[in-house]
Amino acid sequence: MTGEHGEQAGLSGTLTGQGHAFRARVYYADTDFSGFVYHARYLEFLERGRTDYLRLAGIEHTALASGERHEPLVWVVRRMEIDFLAPARMDDIITVETRVEEVSGARILMAQTVRRDEIPLLKARVEAVIVTPQGRPRRFPKDWAARLMRQG
Amino acid sequence: MTGEHGEQAGLSGTLTGQGHAFRARVYYADTDFSGFVYHARYLEFLERGRTDYLRLAGIEHTALASGERHEPLVWVVRRMEIDFLAPARMDDIITVETRVEEVSGARILMAQTVRRDEIPLLKARVEAVIVTPQGRPRRFPKDWAARLMRQG
Amino acid sequence: MTGEHGEQAGLSGTLTGQGHAFRARVYYADTDFSGFVYHARYLEFLERGRTDYLRLAGIEHTALASGERHEPLVWVVRRMEIDFLAPARMDDIITVETRVEEVSGARILMAQTVRRDEIPLLKARVEAVIVTPQGRPRRFPKDWAARLMRQG
Amino acid sequence: MTGEHGEQAGLSGTLTGQGHAFRARVYYADTDFSGFVYHARYLEFLERGRTDYLRLAGIEHTALASGERHEPLVWVVRRMEIDFLAPARMDDIITVETRVEEVSGARILMAQTVRRDEIPLLKARVEAVIVTPQGRPRRFPKDWAARLMRQG
Repeated sequence: MTGEHGEQAGLSGTLTGQGHAFRARVYYADTDFSGFVYHARYLEFLERGRTDYLRLAGIEHTALASGERHEPLVWVVRRMEIDFLAPARMDDIITVETRVEEVSGARILMAQTVRRDEIPLLKARVEAVIVTPQGRPRRFPKDWAARLMRQG
Repeated sequence: MTGEHGEQAGLSGTLTGQGHAFRARVYYADTDFSGFVYHARYLEFLERGRTDYLRLAGIEHTALASGERHEPLVWVVRRMEIDFLAPARMDDIITVETRVEEVSGARILMAQTVRRDEIPLLKARVEAVIVTPQGRPRRFPKDWAARLMRQG
Repeated sequence: MTGEHGEQAGLSGTLTGQGHAFRARVYYADTDFSGFVYHARYLEFLERGRTDYLRLAGIEHTALASGERHEPLVWVVRRMEIDFLAPARMDDIITVETRVEEVSGARILMAQTVRRDEIPLLKARVEAVIVTPQGRPRRFPKDWAARLMRQG
Repeated sequence: MTGEHGEQAGLSGTLTGQGHAFRARVYYADTDFSGFVYHARYLEFLERGRTDYLRLAGIEHTALASGERHEPLVWVVRRMEIDFLAPARMDDIITVETRVEEVSGARILMAQTVRRDEIPLLKARVEAVIVTPQGRPRRFPKDWAARLMRQG
């Protein structure tokens, strides 16, 4: 946990045997007047988990968007199933875990969990694709499945 | 579309034979650097549809929260299934439609669609409950099913 | 308030003798655990006021971004001064008023107020510019000052 | 950077001779279709800086809200002056620095800067108070000035 690697780990979470994990705190901006975290804000934590998992596996959003793959590409979420099991509150420290379940031609399926200590707060299954700015889906590079499932 | 009713309709959408509908525009805040609406922002449009549907059916969040039902109660989303079918962009005008599919003892199941003109952009099924500030679920008042299904 | 003009007015607010005004309601997503509207969310209401004022004056974000003026241009806020005078709460109906104070070569200065009934909740002075995707500022077209100050 | 202190530092930033600093990354959720960070999202980074500075100085939001000081108290921002100097983009790593400039009876004045490497992106002056749930301001405990200015 020192030097550049420690910095990187601190900002981007860590690769685990199962996939990726990071810890975050709940701030005012995440909560609503119910006193709990606003349900849509969990999706931002989930996005951060997916983005950082891909980053640590060598796949950067900005590199894709700037045309690294011959044309600009952005990630798009196609489907989510989310179970909200228990609420998080202001100042809570939560852990977000991300696993890749499947990488097919043009589709990636991830399983994500948000926990506070050992208590699961949320479970999600997320299907994502990469598309051109015009919205056309593109196949994943062949090496991605290997890079991502290697962790799984 | 004049006077208080018109105002009300303008701000809270309208009851339809099928449930509730409102139109909204996409602003900078809703988009991300992909050029599309950020996926989690659709959940705010969906929340607005559910909240206004309940409001027009006579069920107010603030009245619940301030203890109208003998104790403070807030809405909590328990489960969502969301299919992101096509993207919305800056300045688009979208329509959000909400139907109640089922009201059981302590659980309400809603079906929601976001469209731009006739193009479906998103379909969601949302399960919600009402809970105390301590997170304990409470049964819905008996008249709610009648109020909400009457529209369905 | 009927037909296309009524629709337009409903979604984009209205031009007034002083500038622009629209009404909006406060939803869960706007609030935080304090029970009040989260301070940064007011900026989204302000953005909506500025965007719709420009829209009704014939200046569209998407037209600018797609190169209507020979190159893609986006709006950037350069400076804000915001006084938070009183809080808004869940379900409140607020009015957002926008006036243009000054249009100089490459800079527009707007004054904005958020009210609930007659109570001012927030006052802001906002300085904005238009820039290329590389961040270089561009001069406003000459007719903008006329279009916007005409209302002022 | 090990054990509880390292964890704490990682999630809550660090106290510096000048005040407080933390680093964060820019995600999809922070950006808008201009390609830059949406201006209102910087306020969430600033809130995080203020919250964590207070936390590391021993002042917790949740302890205040739960009545540690004889009645529930929440932070409210009263005034902000923000200069947006240069834009941040997706995947950028930014540093948020917070200093306390003044603690008077019921008012705290903070100076905050957002930088990417050595480039200042944003400078803000923020005035905040603590209020009851009914919105009445309360005086700061006497030891706060000492705790916070000690760093300044």
